[in-house]
Formats: sequence, C-alpha cells, structure tokens
Amino acid sequence: MKVETHELKVEMKVGVDIKDITPIINEIVANSGITRGIISISVIGSTGSITTIEYEPGVIEDLKRAINKLAPPDDEYMHELAWHDGNGHSHVQAALLGPSESFTIENGRVVLGTWQQIVTINHDVRAKVRRIYVTIIGE
Amino acid sequence: MKVETHELKVEMKVGVDIKDITPIINEIVANSGITRGIISISVIGSTGSITTIEYEPGVIEDLKRAINKLAPPDDEYMHELAWHDGNGHSHVQAALLGPSESFTIENGRVVLGTWQQIVTINHDVRAKVRRIYVTIIGE
Amino acid sequence: MKVETHELKVEMKVGVDIKDITPIINEIVANSGITRGIISISVIGSTGSITTIEYEPGVIEDLKRAINKLAPPDDEYMHELAWHDGNGHSHVQAALLGPSESFTIENGRVVLGTWQQIVTINHDVRAKVRRIYVTIIGE
Repeated sequence: MKVETHELKVEMKVGVDIKDITPIINEIVANSGITRGIISISVIGSTGSITTIEYEPGVIEDLKRAINKLAPPDDEYMHELAWHDGNGHSHVQAALLGPSESFTIENGRVVLGTWQQIVTINHDVRAKVRRIYVTIIGE
Repeated sequence: MKVETHELKVEMKVGVDIKDITPIINEIVANSGITRGIISISVIGSTGSITTIEYEPGVIEDLKRAINKLAPPDDEYMHELAWHDGNGHSHVQAALLGPSESFTIENGRVVLGTWQQIVTINHDVRAKVRRIYVTIIGE
Repeated sequence: MKVETHELKVEMKVGVDIKDITPIINEIVANSGITRGIISISVIGSTGSITTIEYEPGVIEDLKRAINKLAPPDDEYMHELAWHDGNGHSHVQAALLGPSESFTIENGRVVLGTWQQIVTINHDVRAKVRRIYVTIIGE
C-alpha cells in the first residue's frame, strides 16, 4: 500500500469559472504506479469547489446560471458588512457545492464516465491561482 | 491494510429517480473482512449523483421536488443547442448534488444513522443502468 | 500505513446551526502521528451535513439564508404526512448539502485555506448532539 500527495495550481478567471482538471489528474494517477485505490481531490480556499460535469460549453453555461441562482451576486450579503470585498455570494455558492470529491482508481485509472470530467470552480470575484490537493492511496 | 474495488449496476427509472443502495453496500463491506477504514462511493456518468437521506416515500418525493426546483426540466438550457437530448437540467442537477461521498467503516460496518440511507440518484430523462464504484481501504 | 477512527460529539442548536469543527479535527490529526494521507469526515443522521466555509458571523448568516431558500421551512412537505415532526425541510436540505467531505493530510496537518473551516450543519428542528465520524488513513 502506498500514499502520494500532489498540489495542483490552476489559473482561474473571475467566477463563476469552471475548469476541467481531468487530464492532470489522469497524469498524476498514471505516474503514481497505483493501480487500485482511492483518490481524494479537494480545493484550498472558501470560494472554490469541486464536482463533475460533461465539459461542454453549453452545459457549462447552464451550470454557471444555476450556481448564480443559488446565491445571486446582486443580492445583499451580511459578509459585506464585515469585509466589503463583494464576494459574499462566492462563499455561499462554494459552501453549497462543497470542497471535495473522492473516486475509485482501478486498472491505473480514475473511474469516470466518458462524458464525465472532474472540474474545479472559482466562485470568487477575483481571478485566482487555485490550489487543489490530490491524494492517492492504493496498491 | 487491504484495498477492494467493486462495481455495482443499479437499474434506474427516468429521473429524478432515487434508489437506496445501502443493503448492497453493507453486503460488500461485510464480505470484505475489513473492520476499520474508509469507503468511497462514486457514480459513473454526468447525470447521476450520490447522497444520503431517510429512505421514506414522503421525503423522497420532497427531495425530487427540491432537485427539480434547483434546475427545472422546463427551463431553457444551452446544452440543448448542441445536443437536443432534453437533459440539460439533468447535467446541472447532478453537478450541484455531486458524484461521490465517503464514509467510515468501523466494526465491519459503514457508520450511518438508523434513518440514514445511501442513495444514488438518476437525473437523466432516460432510464439507465447506473454503474457505481465502491472502494474500501482498511484493515 | 495506519488507520484511525474517531467519533466526535458536537452539541448543535435548532437548525440551521453551523459549527466549526476544525480545531478538534486538527487535534485528532496531530495526535495520530500520521503525516501524509486522507481524512474522511461524515455526519451520522439524515438531518446533518458537512462542508467548508469561512467561519465569520456574516457569511454564516448568509449561508443559513441560502440553505433555507433551497428548502424553506414553511413550505409543505410530504414527509409530514407520515411523521408530523416538522422537519421535512431538514431532510431535504441535508441531502442537498451532502453528509461527507474528504481532505488531504500533509506535513501532519489537514490541508485547508487560511479562511477555510470545516463545519457541520444541523438542519433539524430539534437541538441535537451530532455524531461525526473521522477516519484517517496514511503514514
């Protein structure tokens, strides 16, 4: 049994920005030599999230719209009273989506559907270099 | 330390369909001989999700209604412009719910509440045989 | 490679109540001696959830409001027809947020952002002593 940790840095635009990280995740798994196990993927920071979706421009736009309906940028947020940084909705959106997902590794690959990609989402009102942590345990 | 991977196939009706997979998960854990560890459960495909709920007909209906409020089937979706397959809302719903959960195994059992069941959800407009991956690591 | 399981008991007020569990999680990880691995955190019961957020009073209020918009307490729920316990919305909210998250442990610490705290949420209409399960696997 073996454990490996990796940090990714992903350049993200002003939110809601959704980025496919599947290729880099696949590369990490392939290089690890681990053929069977669990991979945990989590985002650093309270205005980011992780999920999966078909990475196709139409559905990405649909997801952005739905996320902005969950916590609309132009609502009033009490977070603003303390910080005045305009990202109250970003924090709420990220907390609702959640910071992590875990998957199975089998035959040296993350098991996903053909049209299913792992994405990270920047909900913040500022561009960010998002740090993502990836840990693989297996054999 | 030991690692085991299993694939479940679950017959799902047209979405939103919510199915209790706790009995088959419990059987897998019992057969594994692993008494303490982590179990990761993830769904294959971008129109499915995993969560927990009390598997009681009333609350299942309540959850379906809430999911269809998050991304209503009769809204317009840009995904349709590319694919015309009527499931734009399915992709959005699944991405918001998320594809995976992880739990503790202790005393050879997944630790859950008495009224808490692990469910998979089919959000798609077509019936599906959903593939679920389950990995257990522990001793 | 080593595995450790811990049960936390967290006193929660009537929901939506959001509590920072990061200090106790950090203590568990520090005491485990595990420096690199995965931590899985899941809540017991179908009216609780786990996520991360900046634990600041303003944004906590913002998140409560958003959660009560997802499944408003004063809507009608079919769960009530069976149970009459007034917590139909609690079950729906908890299922949408999800019961678990997983994170990387590196250098003997859970990797999180400076303003990112791990929280458990009680969605129930009754105060609860919530049980949280924490499992760490690593070396």
